[in-house]
Amino acid sequence: MKPKTLIVQKYGGSSVANPERIQRVAKRIAKTSRSGKRVVVIVSALGDTTDDLLDLCGKITMNPSRRELDMLLSTGEQISTALMAMALHELGVDAISLNGFQVGIKTDSSHTRARILGIRRARVNRELGAGKVVIIAGFQGIDANMEITTLGRGGSDLTAVAVAQALSADACEIYTDVNGIYTTDPRILPEARKIDRISYEEMLEMASAGAQVMQARSIEVAGKYGVPLHVRSSMNEETGTWIIKGDKSMEKVLVRGVTASKKEAKITIADVPDRPGMAGNIFRSLAKAGINVDMIVQNVGRTGKTDISFTIPADDVSASLKAIASIRPAISKDHLIIDKHIAKVSVVGIGMRSHSGVAADMFEVLGKSRINIDMISTSEIKIAVIVKDKDTDRAVKALHDHFVTKKDRYQSV
Amino acid sequence: MKPKTLIVQKYGGSSVANPERIQRVAKRIAKTSRSGKRVVVIVSALGDTTDDLLDLCGKITMNPSRRELDMLLSTGEQISTALMAMALHELGVDAISLNGFQVGIKTDSSHTRARILGIRRARVNRELGAGKVVIIAGFQGIDANMEITTLGRGGSDLTAVAVAQALSADACEIYTDVNGIYTTDPRILPEARKIDRISYEEMLEMASAGAQVMQARSIEVAGKYGVPLHVRSSMNEETGTWIIKGDKSMEKVLVRGVTASKKEAKITIADVPDRPGMAGNIFRSLAKAGINVDMIVQNVGRTGKTDISFTIPADDVSASLKAIASIRPAISKDHLIIDKHIAKVSVVGIGMRSHSGVAADMFEVLGKSRINIDMISTSEIKIAVIVKDKDTDRAVKALHDHFVTKKDRYQSV
Repeated sequence: MKPKTLIVQKYGGSSVANPERIQRVAKRIAKTSRSGKRVVVIVSALGDTTDDLLDLCGKITMNPSRRELDMLLSTGEQISTALMAMALHELGVDAISLNGFQVGIKTDSSHTRARILGIRRARVNRELGAGKVVIIAGFQGIDANMEITTLGRGGSDLTAVAVAQALSADACEIYTDVNGIYTTDPRILPEARKIDRISYEEMLEMASAGAQVMQARSIEVAGKYGVPLHVRSSMNEETGTWIIKGDKSMEKVLVRGVTASKKEAKITIADVPDRPGMAGNIFRSLAKAGINVDMIVQNVGRTGKTDISFTIPADDVSASLKAIASIRPAISKDHLIIDKHIAKVSVVGIGMRSHSGVAADMFEVLGKSRINIDMISTSEIKIAVIVKDKDTDRAVKALHDHFVTKKDRYQSV
Repeated sequence: MKPKTLIVQKYGGSSVANPERIQRVAKRIAKTSRSGKRVVVIVSALGDTTDDLLDLCGKITMNPSRRELDMLLSTGEQISTALMAMALHELGVDAISLNGFQVGIKTDSSHTRARILGIRRARVNRELGAGKVVIIAGFQGIDANMEITTLGRGGSDLTAVAVAQALSADACEIYTDVNGIYTTDPRILPEARKIDRISYEEMLEMASAGAQVMQARSIEVAGKYGVPLHVRSSMNEETGTWIIKGDKSMEKVLVRGVTASKKEAKITIADVPDRPGMAGNIFRSLAKAGINVDMIVQNVGRTGKTDISFTIPADDVSASLKAIASIRPAISKDHLIIDKHIAKVSVVGIGMRSHSGVAADMFEVLGKSRINIDMISTSEIKIAVIVKDKDTDRAVKALHDHFVTKKDRYQSV
């Protein structure tokens, strides 16, 4: 007999913000269970719980031990799993809540940002075999010494993907408050369209380029193991966006989406002596400080001197300046130009891999809109440009119009 | 080398009600630790946490699964242990929080009222050996299937006693918001005195007779294993009350304390046919309904009929009447007399075991005060009487004056 379809569903904090929402989600889970599917549910903490716990913590210490922080914060998901199991019982559905150590979500010992090493199947399979819906606490795990760990921001997504992979689930549904992934942010551009299917690679580029529906590492892991993800709304029954392995048919679309991010800043070091090792010095000092450099551009030197520009998260500007100040021989402050008023606008699509001309088109479209391009960076499936932040919305609209709305031109064979 | 003194300290919910109180308790723990003692601390949930969690639960179901209730409620103690460890770190004290499964507080599987089967020493001893203060979540344990269990009302007291016993602690300090155990309730009688030393048996009788400082089962377990208990205030440094094994010197005091309880009701079944098995029928039906009968008095039958009176918790009156209604042949309602306006007043002391005359004295004292005695029950070390509830305070005062305040007379050799 073919085993019943197994669905992993993940509900984030806003989907389980209060008892009413928990009850609504429970109805949805009950429906899936009654349709004959086996269901494993991953839940985040109730909307405000984590903030409330951090408030309490902040009244006691500004510098909590990460081990104790994990003890504290992991209670949030335990609360929501227990309440979800109760809500299912109320609907007559047999269900059981399990936390990280009960499932056996084995992680390393990096508290507050642990990595999953493996997931035990025995307990979950036993409960599924007994006909139960299994509710698993997201975000948390257990290390080899029985210490409670947490997976960092967006960790419940990772729990869901890892559980889906371990159990060979037929699908991993990520519930959120939007209907799926859009061709661009619908709040900026009303004509944004929901994407039906997107490849892991495209989604990763979209995620790192500013679309914040799912944690990037979860998409990476899902891609590595081929876990089919379905991002959809917990408020309706509509099909959302499937994140799957890219195939030939998906490559027909050159540009899957347009994204924008204003969370970066640009630092230019002007008139750097153009001698070997200089760039190395600068970026090693930033790496040591744990600063994530995104784009780097070095202008051609004219007079034995050169300009180096790079972008970093806007929050890291002062840490970056501190790191640069440590370089010997020192770089004079007069040569540092900081620009926080920038935005990164990207077009993403696996179709680019086999088709050229997208970059040229992109620059032309922005040129016609009189938007100046400050920096350019490309990957196999993405072209990103830095523009002035006041131009962001116009740039997104122009690119979306050209590549998505009028996409007939860009749907090649 | 003699091992350092080991103290187990238990702080209840009101002692850790908020971050300020947690910090105050942490200072106290730090002081004990710095005085060269090894310290294990048991904490209850923050004052309101349990109620808040029950509120959430109540919005989802009126009839929660006991297993899920344990998952939910056990988070309360995990939160307070983590916060306490952080507060100690802030004071420069090395500390670690451990929850039930990390310590290995093994229980049976009776969710919400589990019994402790044993406590593993390895993890706690390892942390103590590393010079850490160990903060253990009270109230919770783990069964053989890694299910989280809780110990029922007052369960943190039991955790403290069981941990103290397992580690052969030199003392188990129970912190509360009063200075110790009193000869009677100081809110009723200002001349009540703090008791310096009381035996486990006396404390048990006092607890079941209405003094609510410690959970009765914890006292029983402490007595069984000879764990020295020290009940004291978390607000000051005063010595509180030691609960220890009774010895000859303690038997010199006939009456250790006077207690009162208004939480009972009396049911009289009048003119019961005086035939074999009748009383059996009545009390079996109550036992089946899980009702705890305290005192039972059967009057001598005059005319082939008899009166049976008994006391039960006031909350169980309707359940008791339902149970009695199920008896066949039925007892007519006309024969049932319910009296909720009663109180139980008791005098307790191990000295009674070797000295007679206390009962006679007690009845005389009450008689002189024109207080009518409704029922009488005695144990080896306790005499309890039922009086009208309006007479409670006068009865307590008269007995306390006689047996405690003027105790010279009752301190025999």
